[in-house]
Amino acid sequence: MSTVTCDLTVSLDGFAAGPHPTRDRPFGDVVGTGEVLHAWMFDHAAGHRAELAGILDGGAFVMGRGMFSPDTGPWDHQWHGWWGEEPPYRAPVFVLTHHERPALAMGGGTTFHFVTTGLDDAVSRARDAADGRPVVIAGGARTVNACLRAGLIDELRLHLVPVVLGIADGVRIFDGVGRRDLDAVSARHTPEVTHLVYRRRRAD
Amino acid sequence: MSTVTCDLTVSLDGFAAGPHPTRDRPFGDVVGTGEVLHAWMFDHAAGHRAELAGILDGGAFVMGRGMFSPDTGPWDHQWHGWWGEEPPYRAPVFVLTHHERPALAMGGGTTFHFVTTGLDDAVSRARDAADGRPVVIAGGARTVNACLRAGLIDELRLHLVPVVLGIADGVRIFDGVGRRDLDAVSARHTPEVTHLVYRRRRAD
Repeated sequence: MSTVTCDLTVSLDGFAAGPHPTRDRPFGDVVGTGEVLHAWMFDHAAGHRAELAGILDGGAFVMGRGMFSPDTGPWDHQWHGWWGEEPPYRAPVFVLTHHERPALAMGGGTTFHFVTTGLDDAVSRARDAADGRPVVIAGGARTVNACLRAGLIDELRLHLVPVVLGIADGVRIFDGVGRRDLDAVSARHTPEVTHLVYRRRRAD
Repeated sequence: MSTVTCDLTVSLDGFAAGPHPTRDRPFGDVVGTGEVLHAWMFDHAAGHRAELAGILDGGAFVMGRGMFSPDTGPWDHQWHGWWGEEPPYRAPVFVLTHHERPALAMGGGTTFHFVTTGLDDAVSRARDAADGRPVVIAGGARTVNACLRAGLIDELRLHLVPVVLGIADGVRIFDGVGRRDLDAVSARHTPEVTHLVYRRRRAD
């Protein structure tokens, strides 16, 4: 059966993005939030090849509506996500939403499937599609928290950036998850980010 | 001049203690909170000697009222803190409070001084007393956050325990601190705790 993994880049105070994302600013209206969180990926990629590969190492992906689009309500079918015509997933991506939409096939092997039947169903469909390869929970923080609360994530990889964002609102990793004991697997320090790996604790 | 250091053991969701500490339960009324956070110190001390030494490596200490006593209001002079007659500090400890109290000399070299004139004054007096050795901010989270907000901490050492406490209230590290960019110095993984060291970023 597929392992369910999740990578999330977070600030020291647990934010993965600022509030109020827009089409122009996927990481929200606190200017620079996306840049400061993701500099390790873009400005220092050579030092993080293994971790970057892991983020996209999925046979299928699951993401929240807000990870695909900042819009709410019925779909604007012209919106194809933030990744251009050839998204980096190159596999089926199951997008959680309350609004039906036909599957959207993009270049390079990515197809977005819009799931209106809830998280468990999305993960179940992703498991089927992944055919033994990992299922990757692609964010955002609200979806990650829902998965953690449901005990769905086998391996959580936090990329901890040495900044306190101090955002007044916004969703933080672990908000509403409740008590969870995890197994700490590894930590790798670099000046721009600390890579922390946790696994779900197996029942004794 | 003294370096100002701070060690804080925190859960993945940023809690250093549960809410509502009592005389019997310094880490609050969520049963087991103190035990799960501090198992690395007590059950695994041999694997963490350097970090444990750092926590008490101060020429003087500053702590919040709540770190010394769960009581509020005027002092009960019978209360000498949670550490017995020979506290582990073995140096002057400046306790922030709104209520005057004469200095309290304990065994082993610890003297508690009660400071009613605010954080800056407490840190200033601690610097004088430390005589070039480090000033240690001894907690709790509210005091640590006030120090971070004021830019007083040179080196912040977080001991990150792989547990999500999921506490509904309580103070979390970095709450109200605002935007801060830190320098990530090191990370050391162990199964029971990850030791993370950050330094205040010097002005360019």
